[in-house]
Amino acid sequence: MLCWAHYRFRQRLIAKAEALGLRNSSRPKEILKKAERVANFEQDVWSIFSPLAAQLKAVNLGQGYMNFLPPDFIIESAKGVFSDNANNQYSHPKGRIRLRKALAKAYDPYFHNRNLDPETEIIVTAGANEGIFAIFAGYLDVGDEVILMEPFFDQYISNTTMNGGVPVYVPLRPKFDGNKVISSSEWRLDINELRAKITPKSKIIVLNTPHNPVGKVFSKEELIEIGQVAIKHNLLIISDEVYDRLYFRPDTHERIANLPGLWERTITVGSAGKTFGVTGWRVGWLIGHHHLIETALAAHTRIVFIANSPLQEAIAIGFEKADEHNFFDNQIALYEKKREKMIRPFADLGLPYTIPQGSYFLLVNTSKIRVPENYQVPEIIQKRPKDFKTCYWMAKEIGVVAIPPSEFYSLENQHLGENYARFAFCKTDEMLDEAAGLLKKLENYIID
Amino acid sequence: MLCWAHYRFRQRLIAKAEALGLRNSSRPKEILKKAERVANFEQDVWSIFSPLAAQLKAVNLGQGYMNFLPPDFIIESAKGVFSDNANNQYSHPKGRIRLRKALAKAYDPYFHNRNLDPETEIIVTAGANEGIFAIFAGYLDVGDEVILMEPFFDQYISNTTMNGGVPVYVPLRPKFDGNKVISSSEWRLDINELRAKITPKSKIIVLNTPHNPVGKVFSKEELIEIGQVAIKHNLLIISDEVYDRLYFRPDTHERIANLPGLWERTITVGSAGKTFGVTGWRVGWLIGHHHLIETALAAHTRIVFIANSPLQEAIAIGFEKADEHNFFDNQIALYEKKREKMIRPFADLGLPYTIPQGSYFLLVNTSKIRVPENYQVPEIIQKRPKDFKTCYWMAKEIGVVAIPPSEFYSLENQHLGENYARFAFCKTDEMLDEAAGLLKKLENYIID
Ligand SMILES: Cc1ncc(COP(=O)(O)O)c(C=O)c1O
Ligand SMILES: Cc1ncc(COP(=O)(O)O)c(C=O)c1O
Repeated sequence: MLCWAHYRFRQRLIAKAEALGLRNSSRPKEILKKAERVANFEQDVWSIFSPLAAQLKAVNLGQGYMNFLPPDFIIESAKGVFSDNANNQYSHPKGRIRLRKALAKAYDPYFHNRNLDPETEIIVTAGANEGIFAIFAGYLDVGDEVILMEPFFDQYISNTTMNGGVPVYVPLRPKFDGNKVISSSEWRLDINELRAKITPKSKIIVLNTPHNPVGKVFSKEELIEIGQVAIKHNLLIISDEVYDRLYFRPDTHERIANLPGLWERTITVGSAGKTFGVTGWRVGWLIGHHHLIETALAAHTRIVFIANSPLQEAIAIGFEKADEHNFFDNQIALYEKKREKMIRPFADLGLPYTIPQGSYFLLVNTSKIRVPENYQVPEIIQKRPKDFKTCYWMAKEIGVVAIPPSEFYSLENQHLGENYARFAFCKTDEMLDEAAGLLKKLENYIID
Repeated sequence: MLCWAHYRFRQRLIAKAEALGLRNSSRPKEILKKAERVANFEQDVWSIFSPLAAQLKAVNLGQGYMNFLPPDFIIESAKGVFSDNANNQYSHPKGRIRLRKALAKAYDPYFHNRNLDPETEIIVTAGANEGIFAIFAGYLDVGDEVILMEPFFDQYISNTTMNGGVPVYVPLRPKFDGNKVISSSEWRLDINELRAKITPKSKIIVLNTPHNPVGKVFSKEELIEIGQVAIKHNLLIISDEVYDRLYFRPDTHERIANLPGLWERTITVGSAGKTFGVTGWRVGWLIGHHHLIETALAAHTRIVFIANSPLQEAIAIGFEKADEHNFFDNQIALYEKKREKMIRPFADLGLPYTIPQGSYFLLVNTSKIRVPENYQVPEIIQKRPKDFKTCYWMAKEIGVVAIPPSEFYSLENQHLGENYARFAFCKTDEMLDEAAGLLKKLENYIID
């Protein structure tokens, strides 16, 4: 960020340059117009609430990144890779072989020991995000429909539409309208509602388990039902399992690709960012039938060519060493404690919430919070659903930033999100404690 | 790579798993068909010649990556970033501010000290490749035409067509048909040929200077001519200047964005991979008018969300420290010597070549090399233009791998490339010396 004086100084320089004809800030002529695929993007929730958090110095439980260091063995593995030049240069677009082998080994037990082939059944992508984009690029022709469950990870929408696809929405619905404490398992997909959305254009269904922001881990029975629809209507399944190492005991994370007949039509998506707490490293992976992986690879190779080499190598070492550090179990134990810390203030306040089975998000039902009626908010907040106002108010008056989940719904179903706020608890205990202290102030604003 | 015994073992396991019904390798049904945008990709030249080089243990002057370490201060800066957690987590999609500021400072003198704004006129991408893809995604609607000069960097084509664009080709043509030693400045664009390719659908023209594979650095006069066409027909200019730190004295690298009226319609593309010899780090950047950058950012944010954070930070430090190490001048001196080493064997043989003004490629005219007439090559080579056969033969019989440049031409103009081979000299002196030794063997195959 530029400081104000510096900013004014620049503006004056620019004005001067323009006066001298050295600089021309006029808008490029209209023919340099944006492509349709990007022309109608709305301002996203992050660009509203992240600067707000910074400006207010509020406790930021908005964006889902860790505010603590990854474990030492991960940092050390990263530091170690640079002195081998191959780690600094282009790799095979499939990804570095050491990482593909490590992934095959780490994931094989989760895929019924099917003996995953690192040459044909796994590719490394520039984060899960680019992996998902590449699948859409590889499979969507104009007008093909992609079925998405609400609330959704927001990038799915643009990733679909940028590749000519049409999003079709089916909501997860909470028991009791979510105004009691419930488990995320009580957010359910109505399978008939899903079936009703199928058309001859349906091509892909996106599943996200463990789910952001609900925390739901889909049960085997639910996966079977979804799988049957996919088989019947010949759909490709993208199973976004980036939180697959972050589920809470006693739940277990089932994988839809293991169900009969589904390996052939499922691409499972993973993320080193979530797995090792390094969201900025941009290493992800796709696992699936070699024909599916080949198609995603064709697109991936052209979009980014390769994921960055050094951090691929570091993640490979991370997987190799994870067990000796009992890393994954420790990480779950760590997050179980953080989940407790996140829940506690809301339990004390008597505000209903959804206990997440996985991921690092807590959805809190805010319908009992009374935001003062004539509370003033900027226009950008005013024109959005109620949860934007609630979250804005909470940021300013309580000092804690959460994300309004109506952002994760289609226009039509936004009202389903407007009584919630999403809190990310991938944060230090200190930060969670500080948030808990501040959240006590909500007490004065709760109605019954 | 799997060894053969291991491979057979896997195949037997797979067959067994299939017999037990645990695994089904059948092809997914036809409805899971690839999108049109990726369905017709041909096997690329890299996936033929890179494995060939490995298999033959030949001296590989094929792909353009450095086989030597980047300078110590770059490696040290990378090692240093991981202990600050912010460097491991999501950054702003625009890129880390430290890097954007370093870029503004480093590039400002090259843009007439226009006082580049790191908040609005620069974004960081996941390599130059993703940056270029994002520009196409941001600007191309279906049927929009992109003018490309042949020979081209091969990713331009798929990056255009994947975003609905239609490539239109104009060749650079060498003086004397390239069968004398010439400077890369003697490869010229016929401006009337370019003008003749303009249609109402023309939207973007891609310029690459210094040029891969020709080595040409476009002169100011040439840029003015191209710029006039762009202004007249309201084209966006993508100026791919990834080799902007790799030009050879006394030439200087001019920037088209500096010409009158062109800042508003030019996005300049750069690459940390080329600038600091770390092709695998996947950090690139786009510089231009804020409206142009905003559009590319909209696409970039959805395609990869962000370029990896730690290596952005390391590159920022690299720029900050470059001058104290006199890095860029030293690097040019280093490459001037390598260019000499690369040229020498061909000069001795009396084979014509193009002296590159920039980049790290040497184009050699191979028309005097007589490959034995009934020399056997695999089908995949047989069906491609003559240069594939020449390069295949040279890999096997001479022991040096070069890339057949017909790969960098449209079907229609492939014949313009078939009398050349491209040698990458971003390699250790030892490797270049070894290649020089081997290339002597060509002597017996040269006709006059
Ligand atoms: C459900 C889901 N999928 C994918 C991603 C993106 O993961 P990555 O950072 O590896 O691109 C996220 C990140 O928040 C996510 O929540
Ligand atoms: C002309 C040209 N543009 C772009 C690129 C891609 O650069 P990056 O590795 O930063 O994606 C290359 C790489 O070879 C190139 O030669």
